[in-house]
Amino acid sequence: MDKIVSLCKRRGFIFQSSEIYGGLASTWDYGPLGAELKRNLKEAWWRSNVYERDDIEGLDASILMHPMTWMASGHVTSFEDTLADCKSCKKRFKVEHLVKNKCPECGGDVTEPRQFNLMLKTYLGAVENEASLTYLRPETAQGIFVNFQNVVNASRKKIPFGIAQIGKAFRNEVTTGNFTFRSREFEQMEIEFFVKPGTDEEWYKKWVEDRFDWYIKFGIKKENLRKRPHEKHELAHYAKSCTDIEYKFPFSTKGARLPDGQGSASGGGWSELEGIANRTDFDLKQHMNLSTKDLQYFDEETRERYIPYVIEPSGGIDRSILAFLTDSYREEKVKDEKRVVLGLHRKLAPIKAAILPLLKNRDEIVKIGKSLAADLRKSMRVMYDDTASIGRLYRRQDEIGTPYCITVDVESLTDKKVTVRDRDSMKQDRVSLPQVKEYLLEKFE
Amino acid sequence: MDKIVSLCKRRGFIFQSSEIYGGLASTWDYGPLGAELKRNLKEAWWRSNVYERDDIEGLDASILMHPMTWMASGHVTSFEDTLADCKSCKKRFKVEHLVKNKCPECGGDVTEPRQFNLMLKTYLGAVENEASLTYLRPETAQGIFVNFQNVVNASRKKIPFGIAQIGKAFRNEVTTGNFTFRSREFEQMEIEFFVKPGTDEEWYKKWVEDRFDWYIKFGIKKENLRKRPHEKHELAHYAKSCTDIEYKFPFSTKGARLPDGQGSASGGGWSELEGIANRTDFDLKQHMNLSTKDLQYFDEETRERYIPYVIEPSGGIDRSILAFLTDSYREEKVKDEKRVVLGLHRKLAPIKAAILPLLKNRDEIVKIGKSLAADLRKSMRVMYDDTASIGRLYRRQDEIGTPYCITVDVESLTDKKVTVRDRDSMKQDRVSLPQVKEYLLEKFE
Repeated sequence: MDKIVSLCKRRGFIFQSSEIYGGLASTWDYGPLGAELKRNLKEAWWRSNVYERDDIEGLDASILMHPMTWMASGHVTSFEDTLADCKSCKKRFKVEHLVKNKCPECGGDVTEPRQFNLMLKTYLGAVENEASLTYLRPETAQGIFVNFQNVVNASRKKIPFGIAQIGKAFRNEVTTGNFTFRSREFEQMEIEFFVKPGTDEEWYKKWVEDRFDWYIKFGIKKENLRKRPHEKHELAHYAKSCTDIEYKFPFSTKGARLPDGQGSASGGGWSELEGIANRTDFDLKQHMNLSTKDLQYFDEETRERYIPYVIEPSGGIDRSILAFLTDSYREEKVKDEKRVVLGLHRKLAPIKAAILPLLKNRDEIVKIGKSLAADLRKSMRVMYDDTASIGRLYRRQDEIGTPYCITVDVESLTDKKVTVRDRDSMKQDRVSLPQVKEYLLEKFE
Repeated sequence: MDKIVSLCKRRGFIFQSSEIYGGLASTWDYGPLGAELKRNLKEAWWRSNVYERDDIEGLDASILMHPMTWMASGHVTSFEDTLADCKSCKKRFKVEHLVKNKCPECGGDVTEPRQFNLMLKTYLGAVENEASLTYLRPETAQGIFVNFQNVVNASRKKIPFGIAQIGKAFRNEVTTGNFTFRSREFEQMEIEFFVKPGTDEEWYKKWVEDRFDWYIKFGIKKENLRKRPHEKHELAHYAKSCTDIEYKFPFSTKGARLPDGQGSASGGGWSELEGIANRTDFDLKQHMNLSTKDLQYFDEETRERYIPYVIEPSGGIDRSILAFLTDSYREEKVKDEKRVVLGLHRKLAPIKAAILPLLKNRDEIVKIGKSLAADLRKSMRVMYDDTASIGRLYRRQDEIGTPYCITVDVESLTDKKVTVRDRDSMKQDRVSLPQVKEYLLEKFE
């Protein structure tokens, strides 16, 4: 884990937020490579779920929502931790982490437990009072539920169908940590999939398989991924059933978080990447009651009117990125030298190809390299680097996961070909210059 | 304007946030089509500025930042409106909107003017006090400045180079309105371009041209776009020069907003889409002073150490979307019938192609249509619609800007061809089924 954290900072994947001011606890910034990786991950998810399916529509709802939303969802009344403070060392703990009502760190006495709501508050308008109080959304899901009827009307979708959304959510976490695993500001990729009551468990099972397979497809090793169905007593108040897709992180996590699904963990490194829940008709029913708007679905074929059940595959983007980084990191021995490789899936790799001229003082070579880079840039993210020896340049690209390195050498001047090296096999192909783009695009298909 | 607002709601571009609860003032949700349009716009901007250039890196910083950031930027002390309340009707106004110190609505007396900070506050941690106070970023720019040194170190970029970022920002606006033009939650696309002092005005001019051309390239009509250099007295405290790229919106706007650039307007519909400012070394200097970290750049060639100047092209995504929607909207007469067309640039159009089977009861026709749709879905966003007559189906696609409609008819069964209709010319091509994908992909190149 330390290696990943250090690589992330050094190469510009992830920086601590506001680092020059000592950092802001549990918030993170994605640097140049991290921003690309995140973009690629979101794009892969959106393509798989919105573009390649015919039963899902996208949505992009605001972070600030009407406070009634959180009354309906139950977050105002029950999205809470029970906390106690140590009277000696003044640290604050969740009650379930106390050891026989003693501080787990110094053994001191603790205060009476208090309820603590996890939503971040803000005030809209000029006066700070109850009327202007609102919250930063603690989950993206509710933005979908309140728009359910709008989307049905505008898109003419028929049940079963889903609404997909990617966006930021915020939680005033007390116990944070493990790098980006649990942070106060995080990004979710969520689908609310609306189905006819009675077909819900079947769809729930389908989605568990579908989402598990997605992580495997994009490169997570099977042995590091598992499905963990929740026990009855773990289920959130709205859920009929729930399965976590867990990844075996190189750290130990503990502490279940309910009722949200963004942080339960079963220890031993196995921690939630995504939760798939059967939320029943809980949310729509609640919103219907509070808003007094009719949120029922009218089935034109059967002439029935009903509140649909909802299956929710809800993934964390930041922890997925952490999983993809961790899982793809490997160290190899090549000719007695250590080679660090980030074996990221081609679709996720931040840089698709690096152009490395062998002699940076030969104008003709530089010219070929730069013109190739300019051409490739129209189709993919490329990097041009001539600031070190070729061995070092390869190592730099390997450790950020660049699938292809292209070297321009003296021979290129006569044969008009370049060498394309594969990150994983390290095999080299000699490809003629006008063919390079097509050669690469084919690999990325 | 009313037509745009109504189209946006009806077809699922933009909904009022939390509408079932009466809405949350000045926040908006992007529906299925709006979410795609926004994705496409962001992608186009990112491609133009990050992928296709070799001198810009991306970044994705958090919304929550260390509060010292906003001390350094000047937002804590001077990001304010001066407001007064009407004693009769209790409404609140900016002082510059008062009429001879009387309420502009009811003519009543007003209170003494008060300063009102425009940043949204929140509290991190269990206690709400000065120590836990932080803000939702009012601009994305500062996330770039505090990471300047991190990005230089990780990316080895040499000046001149820029850092690009897309992300949400928040302002506690008092006067909001004009649909999505000014909202409390909005998204920015910003570049901070770092240059050597002395070359700053030259780069500033380049960026003004570059950004102006970008809007034209993606379809904004020249007569609706203009550059408006700021007068000396309009300049923000950090700016040496600034030019707004203004779009002629179909509404009248007034009220300059300083010192931020997200809302100045010169009346007559002409309003800011993007501001390009020469921010000098103001921000880096401020952060250097407050953090006591050395944020100077070391030029290896000249062995000089200096604080770079910054050129900032800062665009608003929501108001750009509004401009692209407004600008592309047209009504035509076709055979005595009104045709509403959203002539969006192909890269921006939410749906790239619609598959419309002429006879939905003929299984073979439906089969061809669905299989074509499934094939195209791997490469682009497509829609399959068979729920109305062909005339109506065309109209539906025209008004959401779909560049190509593909009809499957009885002849398709024998000649294995389909008809591809161009949105703008309404010309029809007969294309053989296995060629359709390539035919379309070529059009989108």
